[in-house]
Amino acid sequence: MTKNPSPQIWLYDTTLRDGTQREGLSVSIEDKLRIAKRLDQLGIPFIEGGWPGANPKDVQFFWQLQEDPLKQSEIVAFCSTRRPNTTAASEPMLQAILAAGSRWVTIFGKSWDLHVTAGLKTSLEENLAMIRDTIEYLRSQGRRVIYDAEHWFDGYKHNPDYALQTLETAITAGAEWLVLCDTNGGALPHEVSQIVQDVVKVTGEWVLGTGKDYPQSPITNHQSPIPQIGIHTHNDSDMAVANALAAVMAGATMVQGTMNGYGERCGNANLCSLIPNLQLKLGYSCIGEDELVQLTEASRFVSEVVNLAPDEHAPFVGRSAFAHKGGIHVSAVERNPLTYEHIQPEQVGNRRRIVISEQSGLSNVLAKARTFGIELDPQQPEARQILQKMKDLESEGYQFEAAEASFALLMHEALGNRPQFFEVKGFQVHCDLIEGKASSSALATIKVAVNGKNILEAAEGNGPVAALDAALRKALLNFYPQIAAFELTDYKVRILNGHTGTAAKTRALVESGNGHQRWTTVGVSPNILEASYQAVVEGLEYGLLLHSQAEAQFPAIQKPKIENTKITES
Amino acid sequence: MTKNPSPQIWLYDTTLRDGTQREGLSVSIEDKLRIAKRLDQLGIPFIEGGWPGANPKDVQFFWQLQEDPLKQSEIVAFCSTRRPNTTAASEPMLQAILAAGSRWVTIFGKSWDLHVTAGLKTSLEENLAMIRDTIEYLRSQGRRVIYDAEHWFDGYKHNPDYALQTLETAITAGAEWLVLCDTNGGALPHEVSQIVQDVVKVTGEWVLGTGKDYPQSPITNHQSPIPQIGIHTHNDSDMAVANALAAVMAGATMVQGTMNGYGERCGNANLCSLIPNLQLKLGYSCIGEDELVQLTEASRFVSEVVNLAPDEHAPFVGRSAFAHKGGIHVSAVERNPLTYEHIQPEQVGNRRRIVISEQSGLSNVLAKARTFGIELDPQQPEARQILQKMKDLESEGYQFEAAEASFALLMHEALGNRPQFFEVKGFQVHCDLIEGKASSSALATIKVAVNGKNILEAAEGNGPVAALDAALRKALLNFYPQIAAFELTDYKVRILNGHTGTAAKTRALVESGNGHQRWTTVGVSPNILEASYQAVVEGLEYGLLLHSQAEAQFPAIQKPKIENTKITES
Repeated sequence: MTKNPSPQIWLYDTTLRDGTQREGLSVSIEDKLRIAKRLDQLGIPFIEGGWPGANPKDVQFFWQLQEDPLKQSEIVAFCSTRRPNTTAASEPMLQAILAAGSRWVTIFGKSWDLHVTAGLKTSLEENLAMIRDTIEYLRSQGRRVIYDAEHWFDGYKHNPDYALQTLETAITAGAEWLVLCDTNGGALPHEVSQIVQDVVKVTGEWVLGTGKDYPQSPITNHQSPIPQIGIHTHNDSDMAVANALAAVMAGATMVQGTMNGYGERCGNANLCSLIPNLQLKLGYSCIGEDELVQLTEASRFVSEVVNLAPDEHAPFVGRSAFAHKGGIHVSAVERNPLTYEHIQPEQVGNRRRIVISEQSGLSNVLAKARTFGIELDPQQPEARQILQKMKDLESEGYQFEAAEASFALLMHEALGNRPQFFEVKGFQVHCDLIEGKASSSALATIKVAVNGKNILEAAEGNGPVAALDAALRKALLNFYPQIAAFELTDYKVRILNGHTGTAAKTRALVESGNGHQRWTTVGVSPNILEASYQAVVEGLEYGLLLHSQAEAQFPAIQKPKIENTKITES
Repeated sequence: MTKNPSPQIWLYDTTLRDGTQREGLSVSIEDKLRIAKRLDQLGIPFIEGGWPGANPKDVQFFWQLQEDPLKQSEIVAFCSTRRPNTTAASEPMLQAILAAGSRWVTIFGKSWDLHVTAGLKTSLEENLAMIRDTIEYLRSQGRRVIYDAEHWFDGYKHNPDYALQTLETAITAGAEWLVLCDTNGGALPHEVSQIVQDVVKVTGEWVLGTGKDYPQSPITNHQSPIPQIGIHTHNDSDMAVANALAAVMAGATMVQGTMNGYGERCGNANLCSLIPNLQLKLGYSCIGEDELVQLTEASRFVSEVVNLAPDEHAPFVGRSAFAHKGGIHVSAVERNPLTYEHIQPEQVGNRRRIVISEQSGLSNVLAKARTFGIELDPQQPEARQILQKMKDLESEGYQFEAAEASFALLMHEALGNRPQFFEVKGFQVHCDLIEGKASSSALATIKVAVNGKNILEAAEGNGPVAALDAALRKALLNFYPQIAAFELTDYKVRILNGHTGTAAKTRALVESGNGHQRWTTVGVSPNILEASYQAVVEGLEYGLLLHSQAEAQFPAIQKPKIENTKITES
């Protein structure tokens, strides 16, 4: 981590607890461990691991981390205050927390009087006792405590005096951080700013100090003579990140959020947006520069582990975040990136992309060619031919912005250097369904010419596209054994102009990979099978082209690891 | 629209122009018209339709709207200032704008000196002349002008004096609105707030007034003695909506944005978040309450038309925006929704969802049944059977939210009153492609039993689904002549879990119509043909069911007008 004199903001990740509340997201213990380790590498000081006791998975997760602890991050256990009319020492829930073995514990309690009386059905005094007793007990067991004030903003708006009493109770009992939570996500930045300023002022006046007997840890050795304020926001008003920034600018020094903004309902504050905003724009220090350049990769890693498609349009880390489409933009951005980019993509480990589309001018085509290592002269007739061909095909329904490999083949074609690895002479697909059978299989027959020799092959698949792909591979494998390492990794279909009376067309996008790289190809036809076939054929062709280029450049290149060709359908 | 004394904020939608810059989004003229009409119904005062001239599609779009104009919204043409060293009157680009025939034109110009000298390669004086000349020319042709100050915030930070000169030039030339654009999306709310306050103050001092000869229009009859300020933001810092709100609170009275936040890179300010924040939280008036309750439906409509999966976690309008997962939440929210919801979902046409509780699942089923005129008793065993069946199918990938006709058939099945109009015994599809032929046709053979009689039919189509549909109709037409009036109006395909190593499935949605009603059916299978077949079959079946119900209710009902069955593909 590089030294930085900027004020420190302490990041607190809750992907593994609040993030997993997202509808459609579920993780195994193994997934949670992988994510925790990745966040540890990223230098996030606090990682909330879950609620051990409430969830048996979480108990095991904490135990496994005791065996194999994180390098720099503190893992934090999350729990509510004890129940009404018991004692903390007799609360089984808190025994599970102690057994989890984390140095830090986050305790959440009620700030809103309505929730105490109507939700918990207890008295306002008993709620204060619950906060005090729980925190004091954990402190007596050598734990350091973060206090999450649930429904803080709504509670403070309804009854500020009582809400402040809950904070004072927490800090007197020994909590080091008071985290103001916008649990319903309804607050707006001007309110957050005002209320955090109020709290910072009031709590600063208490100047209670915190004990000096805290166990130290490498990254979170923060200790302050006055209570520190944190912020925890939700995105129900599309304000989670803005509210967190407003809180920091009003004096908060801890920010809670999740990777990719995962969380219940509309999600939590997105750390992938918060970190660059805090660090690159507002001059705070959160993680090291060496870690910041890993942000895009970490974001995609987490989305891979939880098996959710990454948001391609996510700020900072999305695939489209630095993509340029219009012709005017492209020529300007090549001259001076700052004219159309708010930060340098490399600062967060992302990259600039030149997108090819209907609206593109020649400058896009030239820029795009360069990314494929092809230098085109704008005066060269081929440059205009490529632009024209591309526009013609796009008006037929092709789309090259998501199918860069097909565009590269088109460029090679225009330049007269597209290699002909094989030629498909024709194919037949047959599909037979008998009512009552669970699923029908498809049979494809294909005729391919390679080096002047005709090959006829047939193969089955659990759909027509899988069958077609399998037949083509069978036909080509003897000539190009590297095909065994290629796989069809994604397949998308869109019906264009699918409305009454218009001639509908199908656009198929096929993503292929070789274990090292991925590329996408496109096909368009009124017939879905033909569109898919075009994209599958170009996918194989482009893979062969990549392989031959690598061979030419590094003749002794290691052959890619052979994997099974998993084409699960169509 | 209900009367509202709150201050008015003028919404300006640019989904059809800036929104279409989103990578992966492309729309036909028909799509654009459908979206414009939906936004018109929603009461959006200004709808930016495109850049006629730069894009041939946009010319046609404006012409079609001249034939069939919008009811209340103003359609706005978008264009840059004239090029350097020409005259506006001789600029072909502006002739295309005039030919588009809109009352309002938005002209964008450069605010940032760097963009003028390095980008346009002209002098700062010539840039002012370009702004003045272009706006004066359009005013002389009877157009009302909105001026978009591109790169406003960056330009103002670098050279505030020059930036303000561009605004003064625009307003003197006759622009009614000055829209401050954060083109790169890099600004943060505190900067936006400060700069908008500065601009409001300075432009207020000019008190230039605007001419009184503007052609009036029903909704945008706004005319102010002082220049009015608008805001146009992008989401590169995750701040588009927060920045727009900050601008409004600092005095801006027009907000530009797009439906679902579509737009280049990370998108534009999302109107679906902006409208409820402005109207429900900050007390401004944007659209009527009757329109606000359509917001969720309009958001989904637009995502359907552009064929992008809706963001289920979108604030306010997402499917998960008011979804409650935990048991504590659920009982609390049922007692007092405000404890866990920041607004009432019904205010924006969304609804509360209880995610895991089977009990509430049952109430969903009961509510849904009611929409089909079926009264279910919760104690009835069939009610639970339907719920179970629906959950089983949804876990396989079926989705009934968009396929209510399939859900209705499922309910009839469980209640034992699903009529069996026909039974498909099996089908075969054959597709043959010879390389070089433009497009292959497909042949389908189908075996159907009607009233105990087996019919074998074959038909061709320009794709396998069209062939299948044609064969099925041929087989059934003698028994059910009303089928001649049915048509397949839309067909969509999605690949579910399309990642490596997971079993991919295809979901096909088929929309059918009979000239009076439309209904949607769903099919799921690893085989795209089987998924499509299921949806096509249920589409015909539901059409027959509707017809028989109408016959039963109105025996003398007029037969629907016979139309050609246009099934153009698959």
